[in-house]
Amino acid sequence: MRAEIIAAGTELISGQRVDTNTAWIATALGELGIACAYHTTVGDDMVEYVTALALASQRADLILMTGGLGPTQDDITRDAVAAVAGRKLVLDEPSLIAISTLFASRRGISTDPSRVVAQLEKAWPDLVARNRIQATLPESAEPLPNRVGTAPGIWMRLGRAVIACLPGVPSEMKIMYREQVVPRLSAMGLTQQVTRIRKINMFGRGESEIEADALDLTSRGRIPEVGITAHQATISFRVFSHGSTPDIADEIARPTVETIYERFADLIIGEGDDDLEEAVFAALTERKLTFACAESCTGGTIAHKLTQVPGISAWFRGGVVSYSNAAKQDLLGVPEDLLARHGAVSSEVAAAMTEAARSRFGADLAVSTTGVAGPGGGTPDKPVGLVWLGLSTPEGTKTKVLRLGEEQPREVIQERAAKHALNWARRWLKGFES
Amino acid sequence: MRAEIIAAGTELISGQRVDTNTAWIATALGELGIACAYHTTVGDDMVEYVTALALASQRADLILMTGGLGPTQDDITRDAVAAVAGRKLVLDEPSLIAISTLFASRRGISTDPSRVVAQLEKAWPDLVARNRIQATLPESAEPLPNRVGTAPGIWMRLGRAVIACLPGVPSEMKIMYREQVVPRLSAMGLTQQVTRIRKINMFGRGESEIEADALDLTSRGRIPEVGITAHQATISFRVFSHGSTPDIADEIARPTVETIYERFADLIIGEGDDDLEEAVFAALTERKLTFACAESCTGGTIAHKLTQVPGISAWFRGGVVSYSNAAKQDLLGVPEDLLARHGAVSSEVAAAMTEAARSRFGADLAVSTTGVAGPGGGTPDKPVGLVWLGLSTPEGTKTKVLRLGEEQPREVIQERAAKHALNWARRWLKGFES
Repeated sequence: MRAEIIAAGTELISGQRVDTNTAWIATALGELGIACAYHTTVGDDMVEYVTALALASQRADLILMTGGLGPTQDDITRDAVAAVAGRKLVLDEPSLIAISTLFASRRGISTDPSRVVAQLEKAWPDLVARNRIQATLPESAEPLPNRVGTAPGIWMRLGRAVIACLPGVPSEMKIMYREQVVPRLSAMGLTQQVTRIRKINMFGRGESEIEADALDLTSRGRIPEVGITAHQATISFRVFSHGSTPDIADEIARPTVETIYERFADLIIGEGDDDLEEAVFAALTERKLTFACAESCTGGTIAHKLTQVPGISAWFRGGVVSYSNAAKQDLLGVPEDLLARHGAVSSEVAAAMTEAARSRFGADLAVSTTGVAGPGGGTPDKPVGLVWLGLSTPEGTKTKVLRLGEEQPREVIQERAAKHALNWARRWLKGFES
Repeated sequence: MRAEIIAAGTELISGQRVDTNTAWIATALGELGIACAYHTTVGDDMVEYVTALALASQRADLILMTGGLGPTQDDITRDAVAAVAGRKLVLDEPSLIAISTLFASRRGISTDPSRVVAQLEKAWPDLVARNRIQATLPESAEPLPNRVGTAPGIWMRLGRAVIACLPGVPSEMKIMYREQVVPRLSAMGLTQQVTRIRKINMFGRGESEIEADALDLTSRGRIPEVGITAHQATISFRVFSHGSTPDIADEIARPTVETIYERFADLIIGEGDDDLEEAVFAALTERKLTFACAESCTGGTIAHKLTQVPGISAWFRGGVVSYSNAAKQDLLGVPEDLLARHGAVSSEVAAAMTEAARSRFGADLAVSTTGVAGPGGGTPDKPVGLVWLGLSTPEGTKTKVLRLGEEQPREVIQERAAKHALNWARRWLKGFES
């Protein structure tokens, strides 16, 4: 069983965009025990598409193709697949009705399936013409419904292989892969050998320090295999285990996972995609405490991260982005003379900001940030990367200083400062801070 | 002239690492006027390597391969290239001396070229054994010196193509590409032609609507070539032009670029990486006006986007993330009865929020958002995706409603709502809103 992933798009082949879909799909296939043998990228040219598809149809058992399903002239996936399969293109009425229903509901038109296409066509003939293109599939193809976008995917046999064509938009592609492709692969009995990956995320220490304390776990040839990766200062262990069922694979991973949890207890913020915002959400939920923030140099990054977590509104009261001194005075009541005496980037102002956020939002705890994000604005005393954090809780207010590096770009300093502030709140909530 | 890029490594084919080398090389080749026709990724398996190289040696004129040059067992690039070329592997003495010199200087041993290998071998025989592997190249290959790492690259003819094998470590690969590959391509006369890419970004209309108004520009075979892509509702034209000098390529693109600017004037937000936050920053700077925001459903996304722009502190006063009703009342003074009568997600509350942000931050203009980001919290009246925006300026306050789609994930709704709010401010600043 060999899979091939084909990513289509001139913006990919020219290097204008980095393709993240392929790595995501390869990982997802790997978790099903399906090994990926080839990645191929093609520009929006019929000869390239057909060449790549013809080759893949001979050497792979499963082809996952992303992109080229839109309604525009350079969207030629459906034409190329039809050409390689030796099939003509035919309109799939149910797909046309599904796309039309989406547009009709947005425009407040009746979505009665028997009339929706005709109704929409009366008012927007060009739109329906484009929808017809997207609903046109190679004969014998099964459409893969797209519940978050317009273009349906394609599922059909192509030479030796089965091919699934998915949209290039990552959010659409991922949903369609999970909801449409995986069940079909299961139904075909292609997913017996299971690989499980436990990704355990940590924050608060460097990658090499963590690695030095985990040499027994990461040594080559060990079962289960353990790798370490770093992404924006979040360090992750990945524990890979294989088995004939998910339970067996999990059981193989279990002792290693337990060792990691014991050894790195206070650093662990979650698993999978969980980062600090999910960890803070879980800790707030566990303690039933409310949260607020006052941000200067992070400029809304803390609030932005937290409010991406569904359900956070139960605990997150809100935040102030006090980017100007006037905002620090007017919205947070930071005294003018405090700003004048110590400067906006100071322990005193960080303390005043977090206390004001806690009291004004009526929250149980609050954090604050004030620092120099750069690239300009640094001084010898207060260089780029210097950030004061404040933490205010029922037990009192503390501040601490971070030195995130003068050489770091602005977005890294903002991101790191926000993560350190969230981590401080998490540690207090979990009882790791006295 | 067709180039193919081959990325080698099991960590790439399995999806554990996203390959950024290929996009970087494709862009760099494009700037030299060399079009990339294929990207291929292979796992660390000799059959896969040989198959991919044999195919590339038939269909490409230039092959850039990254990875597989190290000293370990899974580094098989040199073996595979030799096999496809029908050459044996031979030790390249100068390369062995160069690698040995690097290690000797780190260890304080004499770097006399006539003795360095023997000296190093006495103390570290295993090290020299590994270096020998790295200094072994296919017969007739030219080594590409690596001044920042150990493994030399490979430059040789392979079938129809010339191949350059470079290390997989991005920092080493980039230096070797610039210092070793580009001069050789120049010497071969392959780099006279320059490709320029103008990327013009727009917001406010859908991809297919924009395309419908640009069919004359995007038709196949037209010079310059124009493509359309979409990324998080930002739609981009890419204008590709070729010429013997950058000026000539620019001149070829100019009339098309002018047409785009005329035809889509009010939609255009910038070029290259510029998105709405840069457009708002530029417009605020041009008008010398200050800005504030009050965010509910976007939860800090607007502030977060704006404060990523260096220099925004001159114009951005700050924002309130009023995630709770209490915060809307206490920090923004939204009347309790307004919230009770109309609900937090309403035109009235959006208006009160933006007016409060404008007055409390003392800003010239302000925007607000209040909506249902989901996945929970939707009702038949106020479904997920319903967002009210407010815009308050010296000319008064307006509100408008967005329906971003019940089916959309939370992060898409937050992102889109924030972009629409920024775009509304941009349009007012640029005089496109009466």
